[in-house]
Amino acid sequence: MTYELFYWPGIQGRGEFVRLALEAAGAAYVDVARKHGPHGGVAAMTRLMDDEAPARAPFAPPFLRHGEVLIGQTANILLYLAPRLGLVPESEADRLWAHQLQLTAMDFVVEIHDTHHPISSGMYYQDQQPEALRRANEFRAERIPKFLGWFESALARNPSGPAHLVGGALSYPDLSLFQLIAGLRYAFPRAMARQQPAVPHCVALHDAVARQPRLAAYLASPRRIAFNNQGIFRHYPELDDEI
Amino acid sequence: MTYELFYWPGIQGRGEFVRLALEAAGAAYVDVARKHGPHGGVAAMTRLMDDEAPARAPFAPPFLRHGEVLIGQTANILLYLAPRLGLVPESEADRLWAHQLQLTAMDFVVEIHDTHHPISSGMYYQDQQPEALRRANEFRAERIPKFLGWFESALARNPSGPAHLVGGALSYPDLSLFQLIAGLRYAFPRAMARQQPAVPHCVALHDAVARQPRLAAYLASPRRIAFNNQGIFRHYPELDDEI
Repeated sequence: MTYELFYWPGIQGRGEFVRLALEAAGAAYVDVARKHGPHGGVAAMTRLMDDEAPARAPFAPPFLRHGEVLIGQTANILLYLAPRLGLVPESEADRLWAHQLQLTAMDFVVEIHDTHHPISSGMYYQDQQPEALRRANEFRAERIPKFLGWFESALARNPSGPAHLVGGALSYPDLSLFQLIAGLRYAFPRAMARQQPAVPHCVALHDAVARQPRLAAYLASPRRIAFNNQGIFRHYPELDDEI
Repeated sequence: MTYELFYWPGIQGRGEFVRLALEAAGAAYVDVARKHGPHGGVAAMTRLMDDEAPARAPFAPPFLRHGEVLIGQTANILLYLAPRLGLVPESEADRLWAHQLQLTAMDFVVEIHDTHHPISSGMYYQDQQPEALRRANEFRAERIPKFLGWFESALARNPSGPAHLVGGALSYPDLSLFQLIAGLRYAFPRAMARQQPAVPHCVALHDAVARQPRLAAYLASPRRIAFNNQGIFRHYPELDDEI
């Protein structure tokens, strides 16, 4: 059964964490809002959320439809997908740890987003720029080292070695950490140039994921939307200045 | 086997979502950082995070230890606990929906927290008050109605009736929605007085949870920490003004 991913078509956003899992596993999926025709486009997505109004309508994209199942919340979608895609080990302990890593990645995503939108997602960046400058200073100084340092420790302490976050094989949190590194490099190139020497396992993981054959093919394809200043990771040079 | 909850002792915070589940189920648990003696206190919590530095150390409290298992991230702890405590139905679809509700509650918690800390958790409220005023205005006008409206729809559309979020019995998202309503009433009494007529099912659920015998006993006990201005839900009257 084909997976149907619903997410805004012009950005990577939170949908990208799901796309990376589907692509790394070579799964058959439709990116519904990016599809043309009567069953595609943003209209198909909003129609499902608003007009059809299923009993278990999600709060926001991304969401996944798989047969009768409709699932919202990025980390929840991955919780559902990963066992089916072979992207998490079998044991309950490993699955809880993988999910814990993913939930922490999602917390980081909120903080990354809020560097450019510290007051409201409903307002333009330009209308909250003074607050954004202040929040981004704190973010670069305190939060990038704290979050990446935690992922670095998780890699360094992995009994199976630092090449993966969970056990000795690729799992979905590896893909999410790849995306975090890639996005932070785009948004905060100066801060990341300073930070990366302190997190060599994270950088090595990023590079290894980018070389995985299916991922490499995906990243080189038009299916990979380029980073841009409508997404979570935005490059505003003024938010990446030396403090 | 006794559950050991690790969380800051002076606030409800995110730990409260776990406490409510343990209390509603009548589970045996130790609130480690609130316990006196050599195996208790904040020292026991930080010792586990920093000195013992287990391979799978959590990013932040709360975390739960249950035998060999150490689990971080509030929603992940509840994912583990709920089947064991009888606080979620059996089916995968119901469990995913419960987790989706919980993750959305946790997103709301971040936004609630950031009304008083829009720039940095590491700075005092007083040092980010202008930004807090602006963020809280947006929060009261846009986010309270959006989040509570979504929970209200979820209740209204529940095929088993609007008394519960998942099926026809108490589950952990019900407890979390209770906590959200209680906390918002404390932090934003004016905004909530305006909002509550629009979300009658949420209010009824809050009241029903508060009457559940085990919960009622807990809420009346010293185990329930009072809301205060060190937690997530803080009452700063200036953040609750009419816009």
